[in-house]
Amino acid sequence: MKAGVIGATGYAGAELVRLLSGHSRVDDLVLSSVSFEGGKIEEVYPHFIGRVSAPLVKGEAVVSEADVVFSALPHGVGEQFAKTCVEKGKPFIDLSADFRFGEDEAAFRKWYGKDYVYPELRKYSVYGLPELNREKIKGARGQGSVIIGNPGCYPTGASLGCFPALAKGIAAGAIIVDAASGISGGGREPSRQFHYPECADSISPYKIGSHRHTPEIARNFAAMAALEGRGSPPVIFTPHLAPMNRGILSTIYIPLTAEYASVVNVEVKTSGLRALYADFYKNEPFVRVLPPGVIAATNRVRNSNYCDISVHTDHSGSTLIVISAIDNMVKGAAGQAIQNMNLIFGFEEKTALEAIPALF
Amino acid sequence: MKAGVIGATGYAGAELVRLLSGHSRVDDLVLSSVSFEGGKIEEVYPHFIGRVSAPLVKGEAVVSEADVVFSALPHGVGEQFAKTCVEKGKPFIDLSADFRFGEDEAAFRKWYGKDYVYPELRKYSVYGLPELNREKIKGARGQGSVIIGNPGCYPTGASLGCFPALAKGIAAGAIIVDAASGISGGGREPSRQFHYPECADSISPYKIGSHRHTPEIARNFAAMAALEGRGSPPVIFTPHLAPMNRGILSTIYIPLTAEYASVVNVEVKTSGLRALYADFYKNEPFVRVLPPGVIAATNRVRNSNYCDISVHTDHSGSTLIVISAIDNMVKGAAGQAIQNMNLIFGFEEKTALEAIPALF
Amino acid sequence: MKAGVIGATGYAGAELVRLLSGHSRVDDLVLSSVSFEGGKIEEVYPHFIGRVSAPLVKGEAVVSEADVVFSALPHGVGEQFAKTCVEKGKPFIDLSADFRFGEDEAAFRKWYGKDYVYPELRKYSVYGLPELNREKIKGARGQGSVIIGNPGCYPTGASLGCFPALAKGIAAGAIIVDAASGISGGGREPSRQFHYPECADSISPYKIGSHRHTPEIARNFAAMAALEGRGSPPVIFTPHLAPMNRGILSTIYIPLTAEYASVVNVEVKTSGLRALYADFYKNEPFVRVLPPGVIAATNRVRNSNYCDISVHTDHSGSTLIVISAIDNMVKGAAGQAIQNMNLIFGFEEKTALEAIPALF
Amino acid sequence: MKAGVIGATGYAGAELVRLLSGHSRVDDLVLSSVSFEGGKIEEVYPHFIGRVSAPLVKGEAVVSEADVVFSALPHGVGEQFAKTCVEKGKPFIDLSADFRFGEDEAAFRKWYGKDYVYPELRKYSVYGLPELNREKIKGARGQGSVIIGNPGCYPTGASLGCFPALAKGIAAGAIIVDAASGISGGGREPSRQFHYPECADSISPYKIGSHRHTPEIARNFAAMAALEGRGSPPVIFTPHLAPMNRGILSTIYIPLTAEYASVVNVEVKTSGLRALYADFYKNEPFVRVLPPGVIAATNRVRNSNYCDISVHTDHSGSTLIVISAIDNMVKGAAGQAIQNMNLIFGFEEKTALEAIPALF
Repeated sequence: MKAGVIGATGYAGAELVRLLSGHSRVDDLVLSSVSFEGGKIEEVYPHFIGRVSAPLVKGEAVVSEADVVFSALPHGVGEQFAKTCVEKGKPFIDLSADFRFGEDEAAFRKWYGKDYVYPELRKYSVYGLPELNREKIKGARGQGSVIIGNPGCYPTGASLGCFPALAKGIAAGAIIVDAASGISGGGREPSRQFHYPECADSISPYKIGSHRHTPEIARNFAAMAALEGRGSPPVIFTPHLAPMNRGILSTIYIPLTAEYASVVNVEVKTSGLRALYADFYKNEPFVRVLPPGVIAATNRVRNSNYCDISVHTDHSGSTLIVISAIDNMVKGAAGQAIQNMNLIFGFEEKTALEAIPALF
Repeated sequence: MKAGVIGATGYAGAELVRLLSGHSRVDDLVLSSVSFEGGKIEEVYPHFIGRVSAPLVKGEAVVSEADVVFSALPHGVGEQFAKTCVEKGKPFIDLSADFRFGEDEAAFRKWYGKDYVYPELRKYSVYGLPELNREKIKGARGQGSVIIGNPGCYPTGASLGCFPALAKGIAAGAIIVDAASGISGGGREPSRQFHYPECADSISPYKIGSHRHTPEIARNFAAMAALEGRGSPPVIFTPHLAPMNRGILSTIYIPLTAEYASVVNVEVKTSGLRALYADFYKNEPFVRVLPPGVIAATNRVRNSNYCDISVHTDHSGSTLIVISAIDNMVKGAAGQAIQNMNLIFGFEEKTALEAIPALF
Repeated sequence: MKAGVIGATGYAGAELVRLLSGHSRVDDLVLSSVSFEGGKIEEVYPHFIGRVSAPLVKGEAVVSEADVVFSALPHGVGEQFAKTCVEKGKPFIDLSADFRFGEDEAAFRKWYGKDYVYPELRKYSVYGLPELNREKIKGARGQGSVIIGNPGCYPTGASLGCFPALAKGIAAGAIIVDAASGISGGGREPSRQFHYPECADSISPYKIGSHRHTPEIARNFAAMAALEGRGSPPVIFTPHLAPMNRGILSTIYIPLTAEYASVVNVEVKTSGLRALYADFYKNEPFVRVLPPGVIAATNRVRNSNYCDISVHTDHSGSTLIVISAIDNMVKGAAGQAIQNMNLIFGFEEKTALEAIPALF
Repeated sequence: MKAGVIGATGYAGAELVRLLSGHSRVDDLVLSSVSFEGGKIEEVYPHFIGRVSAPLVKGEAVVSEADVVFSALPHGVGEQFAKTCVEKGKPFIDLSADFRFGEDEAAFRKWYGKDYVYPELRKYSVYGLPELNREKIKGARGQGSVIIGNPGCYPTGASLGCFPALAKGIAAGAIIVDAASGISGGGREPSRQFHYPECADSISPYKIGSHRHTPEIARNFAAMAALEGRGSPPVIFTPHLAPMNRGILSTIYIPLTAEYASVVNVEVKTSGLRALYADFYKNEPFVRVLPPGVIAATNRVRNSNYCDISVHTDHSGSTLIVISAIDNMVKGAAGQAIQNMNLIFGFEEKTALEAIPALF
């Protein structure tokens, strides 16, 4: 089987190449890059020397040769490739935002400032958060849906952190997601904001009240709450830039319903909520609900596809505080994309994603 | 004038030494250290070679020789020195929590697990947040109050971030303070948590729902709200450890009163709130309310006594989001202590605190 | 097959556990820890939650149950385990310095300040640098030599950087090895030197002229030069601590013999030397001689077993400058130990060591 | 007195602004910027809010209004300003390389690929390393020499590390300078090399055998050796990029003359060399020769104008190993420029440069 990556020299694209190289069901890679067409990926990332030296071709060639196509292009420029894949019946897993909003073009337009190029493609697309949509993703090809809108990095961490609370009706009122990302999240293109002396040894929020991942988080929360017929809570989302290479930590404040808020013993309440989370995720291969005393941290999921979750309450017991940690480039991008591929093709879901987190 | 520092070899103590060395009204330093008694501070911190080579003596000698005494000891061990200072009428500026709670011994006991040693000393103590208590601090000696309970680092950032909102009645409901500290905040003593490979390149919260600065923040909020007769909002405080040397960033979520929440135009509302903050702090020498488009960041206050504040709202306009940034060792500890000394002695408030933040 | 790790909770031990967990020929792990005996490794390293929960037993139990024993104990305390393994004919791969000096107890005594406990064990030991001793390692069991003295981290990077120059007689005169290590090299035990605020954002040498890896490097150089009957050059070795988690970069200055030094065209000379290096290592699975224009860097071997080498000359052309980069915990410790295991057991040499370096 | 800075928004320019703001003899600043002309420096560096809000004007205006002109422009573009300053008799302190080579245009041409624009200006220029040329700098105006070629950052650290050895005839043979710089050394312009995820948590050399500071170092060494009539040793210089904001550490290998090399007792020899260094620099305000047991480190000179030097030998005693540490932006650029201004104007040499290094 041949896997293709369009936009293979951006960070998410290269991470796909790295992970796909170790995939037992992938025999060959077809890679494209606009910036480095004609070169080799090992020239852009010497990490690959001796391991991956596939030539960088055009996106069209990837679509034509590969059996599954991953697209790691910027938003708004890859729909043509998606269209061709649909026509050929090849799965197209898109890491941009183009297919994350499905039929809700208005939301996409509002936050991304663009129209859909081929709106009709959305009837073939599924939002690729396996914990929420596993069956749809698995059945995608059978139902003619071959496009996956791979989730954004922040929405992955935030949504997994809130899913049990929303599905089980624990949340009452606005949820605050205060998150910090490593700087690889800003991509490979140099800029002042990500220039080492400007961001090292410092922390700061950015795009307060206006980050594009806000509507995706809100939409996921609504979908999760709707599973048992509940309405959707408002979301406040503040991203921060932290001086680290990888990782997203989400600190999530979920006001508890009166039923929970009124439990006087905070320890008992917290244990109960932790047990509820653990039970909710007990069959998930990549979500780890941490035991008491262990707090989620980005360096314990580094280079892995895990989402670690720890469950706490504030000292008054009014608010559930959930911490979720993911590697923004793995579960937050390339790893989750491969998880989607595994589901689509009926492979063991963990294939190529079994790395234990780097210890430091 | 002689300034004394008890506990001069801890991080806060050494920072005091560094700043006091440049104080135009301080002629001499008297330093103590339990761990390095008999040595010199330049042996512990070679930074001081050629600059400060005061011998490290006993705390008693500091109290006896100095005209003003700074104490950078751990909580619960410095009251004897405070007592002697009171007896001698020497100002005692305490960087521990011992005098932050004034007469409220119950709060101290609950969160610090200790009784006051000399409870009666609290009638001589003032909480040393100049922006809140400037006149009390200035008048302290005249009124026989010579002890300053220097604020904690997190409470400084959180309180300055909320003061205008609380005093002006903008806040409705629970305030969430989500803060991140540089690792110098953990002090000089090595431990697993602060061992480089365990905390570099990673972010994680700690002491969720249980950090000792919580009651100090809540008490300050109450005092600020009470200025105009308002009640005290609940506080949820979550500290994080970020991979940087210095700095505290506080991201503060303040639900707006109906009056503000109902303003439809979010931009107008935000401008108004920013103007209100700017006006509130217009005479403060160390609080900078940032112009539109500039977000507070720890690297823009590094090595300075500034508290930078930026004012935002969430996209729905229901919540005021305030970002405050301080250097945890300067405005959050040693710098603020010197600001208090300046006020007590009637020196120009900015003396020794005029450093422009390091550019990187 | 059961693999055992004595001292599994130190950094090198835990890295062994991580890598062995992915070894296709290892069915089970037996782990010991003095500090955490009775606990589980996932309690010490939450990274392992859901993946490795082997109980931490006594070292004796490891030796008794495992088919191959890795020892990640400090120097001088593991010989008893080695002795038992020899008696049982089980391979013992020692990551301490105890078996790196073979029969040369004097060198060990001089630099490590200890005698051998069982000097006679050295007749069963081989120095485990596969690029130098592959055949001896492979044949070890057949010849009754079941102990591997796994190389030190600095000696690995330095020796691989110099091997071709020494074996081919390119080096004339003293070789300077100027190297920098990530802070994981200092181990898991907290100390002032490795306390985040003391070592972050700074670089400094340590143990100048006195680091224990000096005699190991010198001995390797001698062995490499002796392959073709040449004498041994003096070595000057200066280690530095760099503010990063992992990696060792060695910048090596090798004075060229007159034959090479006299080549006037520096570019031609450098190309020739690079070609010589590339040819020398052409069959090595883990040594990558980089193409022109690519300089070895620690972040291009991170988390992998590669040793990247780039070949340069100074501008006058008198000196060969070789840069080698390894991950100190993989090729510099745990990875190389597994490479030795693979050789001893006749497994494919790359088993469990095929990770492509992390991209960032 | 008015001080002007041409190119005030680059890193060195902004650091000049920061330091000059605290200069007791400077009343006003005139600043220029090509990129931000018409704006204010506080818009480019919010650090300056409330402190420096000088408008950014044209370079010509700086030259016309200021009493002393600092130029922090790139190489080859500021000579016109120098010419005007010479005509007006105003000191011109140039942080580019344009005036570092004096009459040796050939060296400049070879390494910088440009001709001098006004070669005749070199008769008015002095190389501004105060420790080498203090009297020339002091007397500059009297002799009509009003241009200072401010030294490069690496040459400052390397030259101060070798000066005593060269002047006192201790050095025999080629000197190797192996140095590491913080990333602010690369300037403010974003690029792939200095993009956070590409350089964080990693170390690597660059421009091996070809860095432009090589001839400046060699020229300084020659000048230092020539002071007592000695010849000039060859130099090998290898710069590295280390993951830190500021600082340059130079590890310098100086082969000892037979007289020194033959001293058998290495400890005695090292003490003697250290004493010689300490004596040599005993009157220098900014060079600190560290006591035994203290090794130079970049974080002990951070934000200060100090050059810390520690003196060692290799274990065989054949080679003097000198470690020097400077802050690349202070002693390596802006601080040294102000030191030169102080000398030219007869101010106390330490004015505006008295900061004790930041403790972390």
